[in-house]
Amino acid sequence: MNSEQLNEWLKKKKERRKNLTSDKLFDGILKQSNSSLSASITLLESSLEQDKQIAKELIKKCIPFSGNSIRIGITGVPGVGKSTFIESFGEILLKENKKIAVLAIDPSSDISGGSILGDKTRMETLSQAEKVFIRPSPAGKSLGGVAQKTRESIILCEAAGYDIIIIETVGVGQSSTMVHSMVDFFLLLMLSGAGDELQGIKRGIMEMADSIAITKADGENLQKAKLASQEYKNALHLFPANENNWIPKSYICSSYSGLNMEKTWEIINSFRNKTEINGWFQKRRDKQDQFWFYETLKEMVFNDFFNDEFNKKEIERKVNEITQKRISSIQAAEEIFKNNKLK
Amino acid sequence: MNSEQLNEWLKKKKERRKNLTSDKLFDGILKQSNSSLSASITLLESSLEQDKQIAKELIKKCIPFSGNSIRIGITGVPGVGKSTFIESFGEILLKENKKIAVLAIDPSSDISGGSILGDKTRMETLSQAEKVFIRPSPAGKSLGGVAQKTRESIILCEAAGYDIIIIETVGVGQSSTMVHSMVDFFLLLMLSGAGDELQGIKRGIMEMADSIAITKADGENLQKAKLASQEYKNALHLFPANENNWIPKSYICSSYSGLNMEKTWEIINSFRNKTEINGWFQKRRDKQDQFWFYETLKEMVFNDFFNDEFNKKEIERKVNEITQKRISSIQAAEEIFKNNKLK
Repeated sequence: MNSEQLNEWLKKKKERRKNLTSDKLFDGILKQSNSSLSASITLLESSLEQDKQIAKELIKKCIPFSGNSIRIGITGVPGVGKSTFIESFGEILLKENKKIAVLAIDPSSDISGGSILGDKTRMETLSQAEKVFIRPSPAGKSLGGVAQKTRESIILCEAAGYDIIIIETVGVGQSSTMVHSMVDFFLLLMLSGAGDELQGIKRGIMEMADSIAITKADGENLQKAKLASQEYKNALHLFPANENNWIPKSYICSSYSGLNMEKTWEIINSFRNKTEINGWFQKRRDKQDQFWFYETLKEMVFNDFFNDEFNKKEIERKVNEITQKRISSIQAAEEIFKNNKLK
Repeated sequence: MNSEQLNEWLKKKKERRKNLTSDKLFDGILKQSNSSLSASITLLESSLEQDKQIAKELIKKCIPFSGNSIRIGITGVPGVGKSTFIESFGEILLKENKKIAVLAIDPSSDISGGSILGDKTRMETLSQAEKVFIRPSPAGKSLGGVAQKTRESIILCEAAGYDIIIIETVGVGQSSTMVHSMVDFFLLLMLSGAGDELQGIKRGIMEMADSIAITKADGENLQKAKLASQEYKNALHLFPANENNWIPKSYICSSYSGLNMEKTWEIINSFRNKTEINGWFQKRRDKQDQFWFYETLKEMVFNDFFNDEFNKKEIERKVNEITQKRISSIQAAEEIFKNNKLK
């Protein structure tokens, strides 16, 4: 392609994009078209103002058609076998005639589309199934941005008729906490040999889990896995009860031998039945909606203040004064706030 | 007292207050006068603008003389025996010739001075010792306000020569997390019979503990306590390691029989030695200072936005629209932010 052809191609591409109006996309989504869904998520992720406007319109239209799924968060350290687990789990769901969307969040990947190839390669059977939609982490500069785009992607997937939404993430850093606050059920995958391997898991994640599955419970590993599962069971019983009266389950499984692979789905169904009856299921979603509303608004207010050049310089100066014990952290904050008002 | 005498008395009181200049108080504090310390904390807690100004001056002067203590957080549900534990623990510290300040935070008490009588009554021996300073929760409308006043009280106590600062709080609600971020060592008191009694403990607190002590390990309770301690030991070993390389300890104790009461002090000393050598001790304090600086500043910025009458009304309207699925939480946030800028 020479530069003239390239320009022509870019121009056409731009034109095409422009024509993807929110109405057309919305129509495609309601008709359960995966290409419309895919194009819509691309618009969500775009940094162009005109794309953002179309995406906003689209989300607004999709909202009333969203919510009819179960949102499952799956987390675990690298090496725990998330992809093979989701592959096996997905096959069980496909047998139940479910439509499955897998949204993967990889906080370490900052290149858009970087992990799609990886996931699609690793989830070989799933990625070829017609009723499956696999999409990698939306790229974003901040975790808040990624969270926002993921939540909007969930709305689009639900409007497109997906009834199981799996949000996959690695169990390190803040991304697990973020995923926990946008799903109905939070599954933690763990390796047996509860020592060094766990070091990478963020403190506090175990207490968020609705269920813990010890993976790779096959061959020589089986006994170790059983032991680990019992240990987690004991530990989970020490934790204070959840508000929803659900006692987190701990069990072993193997994507290799197929051991207990249907158990996850049984547990999730039992969780859903129980929490729908006691009203917790909808309550958790409403809480999450309000949580994200306040989070988003707070982030905007926060960025407005802390990314201001004048404030940034003042803050840097005050942090130095605090370290040198020339001012208390409270006084420093008061002075910066006052100076911002006066500026 | 008739109303004329009362007015006269109030006038005199006001006059006296005015004369408590920060210089005089500062002088008293450096001379380790408990009455100066007490008067200073009262100024901190005052809602009068002129008192606040004096308090600010005073803190500024005390800052360079602060920091020479170990700050110990002690938490546990009501009934775990915090007061008797601190009483026994304090006696051991007094034998070591330490000066002890106990600052109690009771998030449920909204009346200033409400718990001082309680604590002083319950800590009978301690409260009569000369080298002990016991002070209840500073009253405050918000947890942020209480945190700020407590942190300022720590500075004053340290400048007054107290080398052990104990911050006592109940293990429910947010106050434990708050105390955790202002102390060097965080001790969780637990009851044996790790079932129902734990329900009141906030999820996540166990993972913040530098040590867990099972209280009331005497008489018929001893065996149960031993068992509980072992269970916690097993659970603690499942948690990921702390950044500071410290493995949290779990042990039984009894304020009644005196069992293991010196152990807490041994553990704290060992913790201090270890973390001073690996640099973590100062690092944690520096981090805490910066944390509170940002927290205070954020609270000011957020209050400025969220307590604004115009914004409050807009937020209420949007929350309704979200619940009715007429708008996404993200769009709602964007619109409120924009309208605030335009107003």
